[in-house]
Amino acid sequence: MNLRVPGPTPLPPEVLQAEAKPMINHRSKDFAQIQNRVVARLKESFQTANDLLLLTGSGTGAMEAAVVNTLSPGDRVLAVSIGNFGDRFADIAATFGAEVVRLTFGPGEHADPDAVRTALAQDPTLTAVLVTHNETSTGVTNPLEDIAGVVREFDKLLIVDGISSVGSIEIKTDAWGLDVVVSGSQKGWMAPPGLSMITMSERAWAAYRQAQMPRFYWDVGKAKKSLERGETPWTPAVSVVYALDAGLELLSQEGFANVYARHARLAAMTRQGIKDLGLKLVAQEERYASNTVTAVWAPEGIEERAIRSTLRQEFDIELAGGQGELTGKIFRIGHLGYVSEADLQAVLDALRVVLPRVGFSGAGAAGARG
Amino acid sequence: MNLRVPGPTPLPPEVLQAEAKPMINHRSKDFAQIQNRVVARLKESFQTANDLLLLTGSGTGAMEAAVVNTLSPGDRVLAVSIGNFGDRFADIAATFGAEVVRLTFGPGEHADPDAVRTALAQDPTLTAVLVTHNETSTGVTNPLEDIAGVVREFDKLLIVDGISSVGSIEIKTDAWGLDVVVSGSQKGWMAPPGLSMITMSERAWAAYRQAQMPRFYWDVGKAKKSLERGETPWTPAVSVVYALDAGLELLSQEGFANVYARHARLAAMTRQGIKDLGLKLVAQEERYASNTVTAVWAPEGIEERAIRSTLRQEFDIELAGGQGELTGKIFRIGHLGYVSEADLQAVLDALRVVLPRVGFSGAGAAGARG
Repeated sequence: MNLRVPGPTPLPPEVLQAEAKPMINHRSKDFAQIQNRVVARLKESFQTANDLLLLTGSGTGAMEAAVVNTLSPGDRVLAVSIGNFGDRFADIAATFGAEVVRLTFGPGEHADPDAVRTALAQDPTLTAVLVTHNETSTGVTNPLEDIAGVVREFDKLLIVDGISSVGSIEIKTDAWGLDVVVSGSQKGWMAPPGLSMITMSERAWAAYRQAQMPRFYWDVGKAKKSLERGETPWTPAVSVVYALDAGLELLSQEGFANVYARHARLAAMTRQGIKDLGLKLVAQEERYASNTVTAVWAPEGIEERAIRSTLRQEFDIELAGGQGELTGKIFRIGHLGYVSEADLQAVLDALRVVLPRVGFSGAGAAGARG
Repeated sequence: MNLRVPGPTPLPPEVLQAEAKPMINHRSKDFAQIQNRVVARLKESFQTANDLLLLTGSGTGAMEAAVVNTLSPGDRVLAVSIGNFGDRFADIAATFGAEVVRLTFGPGEHADPDAVRTALAQDPTLTAVLVTHNETSTGVTNPLEDIAGVVREFDKLLIVDGISSVGSIEIKTDAWGLDVVVSGSQKGWMAPPGLSMITMSERAWAAYRQAQMPRFYWDVGKAKKSLERGETPWTPAVSVVYALDAGLELLSQEGFANVYARHARLAAMTRQGIKDLGLKLVAQEERYASNTVTAVWAPEGIEERAIRSTLRQEFDIELAGGQGELTGKIFRIGHLGYVSEADLQAVLDALRVVLPRVGFSGAGAAGARG
C-alpha cells in the first residue's frame, strides 16, 4: 500500500526488522545504550542542548505532558490555533484548569506573529503561549521563528507542538528559544506510533518546579531522573524504541539537512501537481504550506470520500480525510518520513485518472487534458 | 537471552513477525478489524461483557486512567497495598487529589479480606477501593475474589490493577464484580510493551459521569466513542496492536484454561526448585505465591546483584532485582507469557552452579550437594 496519511508513515525494511528484535530487560545496560543513542540523535535533530525525554504514548500524550508539567490551574495561557491540533492543545490546557485565551485563525491561515504580539501586549497576565509548529489538519506551517521572537520579547513560556514537523522540517529549539517542544515517533522519524518526545529548557524546568497541575505518568521530572540511569520510570515501548533507533540511524546517514531538503522538494512537487490538476490547496499562502502534509479542498460538489475510496480500491493509495469542521471538505496527502518522488507521482497520476470519474472536469484531470 | 523478568517477556516468532508488518492507516477498516478482534479476545480473557478499551501507554498509564476516570478530588479512597505497585496506585490517586486511606501489608504478605472489611466498616465515607491483583514486586497474588466479595458487601467502587495477572492467572471480572480492571501488553499477553487495557463496568461508567479529576489523554469516554467506529481517539501503537493480536491468537489456540494451568505448573516448579536450593520465597504463604513471578530473598550476607550479574554474564539469563525498599534484598524470576519448563529449569540449574560461587552454601546449591 502507498500509505500517504500524515502518520503512521510507511517504514523502511531496516526499521521493520528492528521492530522484530527480541525483547530485553528495560532496566539493563543494553536498553540504556539504545535509549541514550536515541536521545542524543533526537537532540541533534531538535537542535537543542535541553533535556529530551522519551515518553510511551501518542503525540497527544506528549501535548498533555507539556501542559501538566509547566502550568498551574488558573494560569492564563494564550493558545494560538490554526486548526484541529491547535484547538486540541487549548482544550488540554483548559481541561487541566488553565484559563485559556484563544487566538484562532481560519482554515488554511497561518498564525500572524503581529497578532500574537497584540494579544500578549493587551494581556500582561498571560504566562505561557501554546503554539503548533505544523498544523497537520490544514497543511500549514506556522512562522515559528517569528512567533518565538515575539514570545521572547514578552518573556513568556513558549510551548510548541512540533509533532508533525520536527525531523522533517527544520526547527531550532535553542536558537529560537523554544521552552518545550514535543514530537511523536510515527511522523517524520520513520518509526511506528507509540513513543513521543519532549524537550525542556531551563525556563521550562523553572516552570515545572512551580507548576501545580496534577502529574504522575507524564511527570518529566521522574523521566529525567530515570534517564540519568538510562532508564524510563515506567516500562517503555521497547520495540518502538528499537524502531526509532533504526529510523534515526537512516536519517543520520542521509543527514538532517538533506532530509529537510527532500521534504521541501517533495512537498513543492505535490503542490505543483495538485494545482496542475485544477485543485486548490487549503493553505492560503503557499509560502506557509507544509512540507510534511498537503491539504487539498475537494472540488465543489464532489464527495471527497469518493476520491479517497477509489484511490484505495483501485490504486492501493491511502490518503487522509479532513478533521473537525473540515471533515468531508478536504483530503490530505502525507509526505513525511520514508517517502520518495515515486510515491507522490503515483498519487498525482492516480488523481488524474480518478477525478474525472467522480465528476470533476477541472484543468489537468484526464478528461480535460485527454 | 533467557529473559526472565516479569515483563517485558520473550516473544514468540509469530509475534515478532507480526510486529514487522507494514503500517496501515489507524483510521481504516483494516485497523478496525484488528482492534475489534483484539478487544473481543481480551474481553474473553478478562471474562467480562463490560467495555474494554485499548490505551497507548504503559501499565502505569492505565492505572492513572483508572483513577482519573472514576474519582474526584477529595474522594476518600481505600488503597490496599502489599508492595510497590499497590503503593503506586495509592500515590497516583493522591497526586490527583483523592484522600487516600492506606491499608498496607508487609513484604510477602497478602491483603487480608477481613482487614479490608474492617477498614470499610470503620469509615463509611470511603467511596472506592484500589487493589492489586498480583503484586509484581513481591510475587504475591491477592485473594481477589474474597476481597471483591467484601467490597461488594459495602457497595463501593472496586478498581483493580491486574497488570501482571490477567491473561496468565484467571480473573472473573463480571462474576466477582470488578468495576475497573487494567492490564499491560508486555505481561502475559506475549506482546511487547506499549499498550494497556482497561475495563469499565456500569458502576464504573456511573462514577465516570460524576468524576471531576482532569482527564484528556486517558479519557475512556473518548476511547469508547472512538471504539464504536473501530478507532482510537489518538494514534495507537499500531505495531504493538499487531503483536497483541498475534499473541492473543496463540493464547486462544492454547486455550485460556490451559494457559492458566501452564502458569500454575511452571510457578510451582519454580518455587519447589528455589526451596530445594535452600532459598526462601518472599511470599509468606505459598498458597498466595504468584503464578507469574517468583520473588526470592537473597541469602543472608550475599549480594543479590552478584547472583544476577553472574547469571547474565555466564548463562545469558536475565532476572529482575527488587524494587523500592526491597532493592538489593531480593531477586525475581518472571514466568509469564511465552514460557516453558525448559526456560525455568535453565534458571534453576544455573542458580545451583552460581550460588556457591557467590558464597552461599545452603542446601541444594552445587557445593552443598556435590
